[in-house]
Amino acid sequence: MSMYLERLNSVREELQSMGAESALITSPLSVAYLTGFVCDPHERFLGLLLRDDKAVLFLPSLEQGKAESVLGGTNALIQEIVGIQDTDNPYAKVKQNGGAAARCIAVEKEYMKLSQAEQLTSVFGNPVLNDVGGFISKLRNRKSADEILKIRAAAELVEDVLAEGLKKVKAGITEIEIVAELEYIMKRKGADAPAFDTMVLAGANSALPHGVPGKTQVKEGGFLLFDLGVFKDGYCSDITRTFVTGEPSTKQRHIYDTVLKAEEAAIRAVQIGRPLAEVDRAARHVIEDEGYGQYFTHRTGHGLGLEVHEYPSVHGANEEAIEAGAVFTIEPGIYVPGVGGVRIEDDIHVTSQGAEVLTSFPKTLTRLDI
Amino acid sequence: MSMYLERLNSVREELQSMGAESALITSPLSVAYLTGFVCDPHERFLGLLLRDDKAVLFLPSLEQGKAESVLGGTNALIQEIVGIQDTDNPYAKVKQNGGAAARCIAVEKEYMKLSQAEQLTSVFGNPVLNDVGGFISKLRNRKSADEILKIRAAAELVEDVLAEGLKKVKAGITEIEIVAELEYIMKRKGADAPAFDTMVLAGANSALPHGVPGKTQVKEGGFLLFDLGVFKDGYCSDITRTFVTGEPSTKQRHIYDTVLKAEEAAIRAVQIGRPLAEVDRAARHVIEDEGYGQYFTHRTGHGLGLEVHEYPSVHGANEEAIEAGAVFTIEPGIYVPGVGGVRIEDDIHVTSQGAEVLTSFPKTLTRLDI
Repeated sequence: MSMYLERLNSVREELQSMGAESALITSPLSVAYLTGFVCDPHERFLGLLLRDDKAVLFLPSLEQGKAESVLGGTNALIQEIVGIQDTDNPYAKVKQNGGAAARCIAVEKEYMKLSQAEQLTSVFGNPVLNDVGGFISKLRNRKSADEILKIRAAAELVEDVLAEGLKKVKAGITEIEIVAELEYIMKRKGADAPAFDTMVLAGANSALPHGVPGKTQVKEGGFLLFDLGVFKDGYCSDITRTFVTGEPSTKQRHIYDTVLKAEEAAIRAVQIGRPLAEVDRAARHVIEDEGYGQYFTHRTGHGLGLEVHEYPSVHGANEEAIEAGAVFTIEPGIYVPGVGGVRIEDDIHVTSQGAEVLTSFPKTLTRLDI
Repeated sequence: MSMYLERLNSVREELQSMGAESALITSPLSVAYLTGFVCDPHERFLGLLLRDDKAVLFLPSLEQGKAESVLGGTNALIQEIVGIQDTDNPYAKVKQNGGAAARCIAVEKEYMKLSQAEQLTSVFGNPVLNDVGGFISKLRNRKSADEILKIRAAAELVEDVLAEGLKKVKAGITEIEIVAELEYIMKRKGADAPAFDTMVLAGANSALPHGVPGKTQVKEGGFLLFDLGVFKDGYCSDITRTFVTGEPSTKQRHIYDTVLKAEEAAIRAVQIGRPLAEVDRAARHVIEDEGYGQYFTHRTGHGLGLEVHEYPSVHGANEEAIEAGAVFTIEPGIYVPGVGGVRIEDDIHVTSQGAEVLTSFPKTLTRLDI
């Protein structure tokens, strides 16, 4: 059975257990994940109608030819592909083509807009709408070997970019100029796009966990924090490394060593079946023990895959169990206002051995010559 | 009265006329447009509760200090700023702080997620939800002088980028390499970000109106199409120019001249009070008259401002009137499969004189030396 049919059938089982006759899945990422067909419909309608006996894909007419060539043929995944014109009511089209007479329809409530839900319930005569989005997020949490390869490739690519970008750092260059260099290198090395706005923060700015790169210049003597990632073949990477641009002070060295120890403790805490909260707590304990607890102001990590922030969230109140195949970031930090901050972030893959670290850029405190 | 207070009061009048006691505005762009406070709450809650007698801003606690310094003081715009913790139910917090006892609440139905609407209706005991998003879009359509200055600045910036980027074009360079150069130049020249994925399409690829830049190399003899824009100070620009890389054939020249004539006809058709459809029809008539009607496969343009695609849509079935102060693109094209395509796009501002063209990059057919 194909990977995609397996995924569709998992959703079908979930529909049965929630008593929904069908699902109408409208987020392009979910459609791509469940069918292998990647489509950005822009403002137009994209929907996968999934029933026990068939699956119908609805998409803008201008994408129909491409969908037929990707999904057509003898495979059993999608039984019908229906093109939608700009003048059509997409929900009426869904009803006509296999969606009739549903009393309960599952949708992605975190994705579907209220205006869309209203059109759907009006055309279908007020069915109950159940949520299937949470289930799909959890399905996406268990990455296949092929997905791991893609995330690993995205991680290798961003590490190449970081290594090359570091050569551009010199006294007087601004944060935003370094960002421009990094994103230029990403494109030249074949990234599809940055996975998020590349972050470079110099000196005291590194103490702002959500800082925005600006015209601050790199000078001798402070921290220089890089947080960057790329999309490649639909999957993304996300890495943070922090450097010093002069001889580190005792205090700087202590902050750095504490973050690194915390990060390594969190990586060691990863084990199938343990609560995600324990990963957060492992990092937080180290940082609290060294007296920096108040300066670690965010969660320890987040799921990573088709999106740069996805299920699960690695925070201290998340008692959900760590699952085999999950990929998430581990990224503790210490941010001392007015002084500077350090964050170290790796992407890890959960295996029976614990955490397999997908990122491999050196983590020993490194002084950049500027 | 401040510009922002005027905007808030326009929305208040709309609420009265629809019989809603309050609006809960949750899209960050609308909050910024109505209050001047720019905030990206990421996955957290941001909401502006607007009533006849007061306005309350709800936002993540970590943004509260910033909001108070931007919005605080003696101005009459926002009466309360309420921070929301991760452990709070944001809708309960809204109810406690000025949102109680509403039978009808206006929201942005094209923005609000079904999951959020369900939480809202559950906390508020099933109020009617009306839509105020369409009204805000139309309010945004009438740009102020200050907004026009910002769009003009974004247009000037992207034209500088295009001029510098053209110098990088040489035989053998790929589409994606040119994109990397352009986006690098954008950042270096101070753009906040590309306004959308920069498009460079070479040769036969230029016939794909939604083509994706790839490894196709620039060669002597074809069209080379550039579609790019930047964000600057919250506003964006969007321009398309098409060049030739060799001596143009008679056919290429005819296609180019037809698109240019169509674009100029559409610009001349802009007049306050006329239907938007006439702008589309003006361009389409020229192209049809020259026998290329089947190859002009998209609408003529779209609104431009805080977003790169916003209200209004310039298409042949839009009988809404052109309004003073509107900014939209005019971008007809001819795409001949297997041969190549030409699109020419300007950003225009509607004044009592007709269209004021904000982009000024030369439009005469230009041969690039490669």
